[in-house]
Amino acid sequence: MSPWIDLRSDTVTQPTSAMREAMARAEVGDDVYGEDPTVNRLEAEAARRMGKEAGLFCASGTMANLLGVLSQTQPGDELICEAEAHVYYYEVAGMSRIGGVIPRTLPGERGRLLPEQVERALRAPDIHFPPTRLLCLENTHNRGGGSTYGVEETERLARVAHDHGLKVHLDGARIFNAALARGVEAARLAAPADTVMFCLSKGLSAPVGSVLCGPEETIRRARKLRKLVGGGMRQAGVLAAAGLVALEQMVDRLAEDHARAWRLAQALAGTPGVELDPETVETNIVSFEVTCCPEKAFLAALRDEGVLAGSPGPGRVRMVLHRHIGDAELEAAVGAVRRVTARPGAA
Amino acid sequence: MSPWIDLRSDTVTQPTSAMREAMARAEVGDDVYGEDPTVNRLEAEAARRMGKEAGLFCASGTMANLLGVLSQTQPGDELICEAEAHVYYYEVAGMSRIGGVIPRTLPGERGRLLPEQVERALRAPDIHFPPTRLLCLENTHNRGGGSTYGVEETERLARVAHDHGLKVHLDGARIFNAALARGVEAARLAAPADTVMFCLSKGLSAPVGSVLCGPEETIRRARKLRKLVGGGMRQAGVLAAAGLVALEQMVDRLAEDHARAWRLAQALAGTPGVELDPETVETNIVSFEVTCCPEKAFLAALRDEGVLAGSPGPGRVRMVLHRHIGDAELEAAVGAVRRVTARPGAA
Amino acid sequence: MSPWIDLRSDTVTQPTSAMREAMARAEVGDDVYGEDPTVNRLEAEAARRMGKEAGLFCASGTMANLLGVLSQTQPGDELICEAEAHVYYYEVAGMSRIGGVIPRTLPGERGRLLPEQVERALRAPDIHFPPTRLLCLENTHNRGGGSTYGVEETERLARVAHDHGLKVHLDGARIFNAALARGVEAARLAAPADTVMFCLSKGLSAPVGSVLCGPEETIRRARKLRKLVGGGMRQAGVLAAAGLVALEQMVDRLAEDHARAWRLAQALAGTPGVELDPETVETNIVSFEVTCCPEKAFLAALRDEGVLAGSPGPGRVRMVLHRHIGDAELEAAVGAVRRVTARPGAA
Amino acid sequence: MSPWIDLRSDTVTQPTSAMREAMARAEVGDDVYGEDPTVNRLEAEAARRMGKEAGLFCASGTMANLLGVLSQTQPGDELICEAEAHVYYYEVAGMSRIGGVIPRTLPGERGRLLPEQVERALRAPDIHFPPTRLLCLENTHNRGGGSTYGVEETERLARVAHDHGLKVHLDGARIFNAALARGVEAARLAAPADTVMFCLSKGLSAPVGSVLCGPEETIRRARKLRKLVGGGMRQAGVLAAAGLVALEQMVDRLAEDHARAWRLAQALAGTPGVELDPETVETNIVSFEVTCCPEKAFLAALRDEGVLAGSPGPGRVRMVLHRHIGDAELEAAVGAVRRVTARPGAA
Repeated sequence: MSPWIDLRSDTVTQPTSAMREAMARAEVGDDVYGEDPTVNRLEAEAARRMGKEAGLFCASGTMANLLGVLSQTQPGDELICEAEAHVYYYEVAGMSRIGGVIPRTLPGERGRLLPEQVERALRAPDIHFPPTRLLCLENTHNRGGGSTYGVEETERLARVAHDHGLKVHLDGARIFNAALARGVEAARLAAPADTVMFCLSKGLSAPVGSVLCGPEETIRRARKLRKLVGGGMRQAGVLAAAGLVALEQMVDRLAEDHARAWRLAQALAGTPGVELDPETVETNIVSFEVTCCPEKAFLAALRDEGVLAGSPGPGRVRMVLHRHIGDAELEAAVGAVRRVTARPGAA
Repeated sequence: MSPWIDLRSDTVTQPTSAMREAMARAEVGDDVYGEDPTVNRLEAEAARRMGKEAGLFCASGTMANLLGVLSQTQPGDELICEAEAHVYYYEVAGMSRIGGVIPRTLPGERGRLLPEQVERALRAPDIHFPPTRLLCLENTHNRGGGSTYGVEETERLARVAHDHGLKVHLDGARIFNAALARGVEAARLAAPADTVMFCLSKGLSAPVGSVLCGPEETIRRARKLRKLVGGGMRQAGVLAAAGLVALEQMVDRLAEDHARAWRLAQALAGTPGVELDPETVETNIVSFEVTCCPEKAFLAALRDEGVLAGSPGPGRVRMVLHRHIGDAELEAAVGAVRRVTARPGAA
Repeated sequence: MSPWIDLRSDTVTQPTSAMREAMARAEVGDDVYGEDPTVNRLEAEAARRMGKEAGLFCASGTMANLLGVLSQTQPGDELICEAEAHVYYYEVAGMSRIGGVIPRTLPGERGRLLPEQVERALRAPDIHFPPTRLLCLENTHNRGGGSTYGVEETERLARVAHDHGLKVHLDGARIFNAALARGVEAARLAAPADTVMFCLSKGLSAPVGSVLCGPEETIRRARKLRKLVGGGMRQAGVLAAAGLVALEQMVDRLAEDHARAWRLAQALAGTPGVELDPETVETNIVSFEVTCCPEKAFLAALRDEGVLAGSPGPGRVRMVLHRHIGDAELEAAVGAVRRVTARPGAA
Repeated sequence: MSPWIDLRSDTVTQPTSAMREAMARAEVGDDVYGEDPTVNRLEAEAARRMGKEAGLFCASGTMANLLGVLSQTQPGDELICEAEAHVYYYEVAGMSRIGGVIPRTLPGERGRLLPEQVERALRAPDIHFPPTRLLCLENTHNRGGGSTYGVEETERLARVAHDHGLKVHLDGARIFNAALARGVEAARLAAPADTVMFCLSKGLSAPVGSVLCGPEETIRRARKLRKLVGGGMRQAGVLAAAGLVALEQMVDRLAEDHARAWRLAQALAGTPGVELDPETVETNIVSFEVTCCPEKAFLAALRDEGVLAGSPGPGRVRMVLHRHIGDAELEAAVGAVRRVTARPGAA
């Protein structure tokens, strides 16, 4: 286990003992032939949870998002997303590099788009314009600081898209966090979208994997595209076994992370040298401004205190709560921040 | 000659008699072998005018912009441009579809970016990020209503780019209009950029063609890429001959278009049902809001009056001055607008 | 006019006086708006000649072939063509670089495929395989030395393709040469194909241009793709005017080139140091082996004699007949070959 | 465990108990941050075994081959490979679809190329040609029936490539089988290549994973490209742990598979209705012709006998030996083939 108090991301979570045991015992087969029973069970269970017809196990959230885009667009299409959407900002330009898709990015409020924005961005067909085919939403929104869409907002956004012939892909890497924050089933948040991706790693702690869910036909295309990008794994049931444990045992415990995120926000809000509005903390991500010193100096000083955090941009710091951050680690992190901001050099 | 007063674009300009004669007499050769003397002359002259080492004759502005991007990026790279830049907005997603390049779009003020914006958009290298390789500027800016950058602004923008290892491509489709408005040589506006594209059609009235200018080595790559996209033409000297006439005879007359654009703006500014700030009219494009009725109804009514105009978006109308719009056509157009806006139905 | 006897290719042909006059007088409009009457006339006439619904004027044969491929495939598709097909061998990898299409190349006999070969290359659907979507044929076949397919061969090849759901694109850059050699209308050679491309330059002597012909819907897609690659030209009627002259006045004269090709072949067949089977000369291309010396030395020596020729590969030389090669030039070329092969150094 | 005698492929092998235990106990970290110690250990060990500077753990052989191509080419490049190379034949056109690379395929003898063939395929630079950048070899060659290259053959092929500025990628999915057959270390077979990929699944029985090995700089590029295709996994150490067991414990036992392949070949060679030259069986793959009946009927009849096999093409059947095929299964398979070919219906 890491000696650090690691708040960089919930991607650092380690598999649980139950997951390790499940992996060791997993019944497996060759999934390229569709013969891995554990993968098949996970894909079915994931689809059920998302209220979709079918699921596809992927090696990463990036792969699942990429396949969501590729399976619902053609090269030369336009895709609409928020200006700092993960699929646009953090995925190595895959949509354009592999998909040949051009993004139309709209500035959101903490990552959230309004239906009116989307509607205004739509253009009448013209020989100069790429056809617009896909709206990508993200819930929770990573760079939006874990912000969420509710059911109705999602429905309204999807309606604009569908009314104009666009499909909707939902990047739900942390959809269970969103569902918890909104007090609804994840499937209700996913319902307005054609496809939804969620991660088994991150807060759910599985070592590897995400699932893309959607209509049978779309998932069939995505399955072939997964082979194309090299994501066809053989006895992938060893990973899927951990994923099934994640779905069964780890969803409910996200509430702890949210509670601690809230406590962390409260604690930091009152700290000089930190600017944070606790109302912006909706899930397990706490994002704030540091005014005491440049964010790089802040992060380095925290590191000296044994605390790892990240920065989403100049002047900003991000801390993510997850199962390795219990009350003791939380207290320690708050203490570290206070010591760092109180240093003479910090102004 | 068209029976219409056609203000849709300066792309509708017809070749002059001098051009037609030059085309008929052009000395030609096989340009795929580099043996067309007229093309070679045009490319040299264009490069000289832009202050660059070499030029490449292209079938269109879209092709020249595409080659400017392709020759200075690799698939998977990021390109920065204004949110409504022609290269992004009107070029059928070529940068992503063909180039595999992802655009980072920044909202400009009438199409113009600030150096600070560009600087803020640059990201430190990270495994999640595409490398940023190119800044595209546009002068005059089409959707910005023909707005211009001056020499110093261009220099400051290019400096930010170059300081961070980016190349700069200037979409100067109407760079002679910009030069006229700013009272400088076009080469001075192009100097800070690595490559510059300008059109021989549009206000300069050649029937076909644009030239991409830049360093020898870049143009050599662009020449091969031109073959790739099917732009290698055989006896292209027939077109280049008209292009040479355009450069020799048509640049100075753009002043007439600017003067008439100004008069048109003044006339419309005072017209009820039209909202237009004449200060925004810098070159040969007049862009305004219609409040009397939906823009589609406005354009249809104008058409009934024998006047063609275009719309860059909801509520907006665009009129472009060019050599087929003399004083008489200008008066007629103003009269038509006044009649249309004064109609009982218009409110 | 060139001082050389230029047998490198029929692409070096210069526009005729009639073409130059037509260009100077051409009625033109903005073809991006579909308003160039001369382009529209050429496209209609080309379609009529090829027996297809619609035509699209393109800047080059490479562009027309590229659009033929792009408009009938999706990235990730497989295309079948002969191993040295122009579309595969000479078009800068456009099918893969722009189209994302993978070629399945089959070795032909002088460029000609057999239906059985194509049938054997087809694979049952499988998650590992790209779907096969297009068969590309070439008539006359450039690297096959101007070899031709007859109507029945084309029909049988197309039938295999269509029976398996593939479309057929015919690279008919020199289809009028093929039609002449086979004694049929070009439209009959094109009939089995879904799309056909032919060149107005080459033997027909227009300065620039090719036309892609096919079903309305396919051409509509190709038109948008033409804009994508930058092939949307403005007053392209100046070029189309020459193209119309080419179709009206230049098709029949190809017979002269064929007759001279035959005479050249006869003359060279008996020349020591040259190996040539006159039976392989079907159209205006004469391809032969030089055994007297390396082909580079041979070409250089010919050049010293004022004769330009090309080489399609080690030990091979190609001469192409066209309207600038009259009887005098033919005699001179034969004399030059004889002198070069008879040199002491040549062994 | 499967109730079938499954000879379709060695990809069906299940993880061993030692692997399952290693997975359960694996020390892991976030590999996207480079912090998974088990992945790091596997990559180092793989590189050491291949005699290369660095290694990159990949989700599949297809991904590792794709990254080998992408990291050593640019879109628009040409790649040379055998006409039925796995990277060309079975990888969903990834090289063209994602890489924009065009393959130049050369027909080999049981999958093996000759240096002279490669040399002849190289073309001088020309504006019409894509630059040739990569030679892909495959050892053992899957569709060649598990055929192998020796050290010297590999060296000669690589020398031709390197002399002309090409890089060499070796698809060594089953390189340990090749090394065994040739009686050399795998590193010696990999030495002439710039990059080499091998699979931990297949005969080595790990559930998931392949490793791409090569120079530091190339692997650094491949690592970023892996993120692009979605192959960046988080706590991938759980898979790498099994991969380390594969390398430590499973390489030597491949000799058993080869011995049984030889016995199978001997047994089938004398069977009426089967045509097989045992000399073509070099490793663990037995490929033969069935003359008794169509291969589909043959496979179906075998299946009724509890034996699964595959077909690489019309009239051909393939059987692959691996650790789940012991002597008893071998005897049973031979018996099944004999019964099927002896059936009255079989002729």
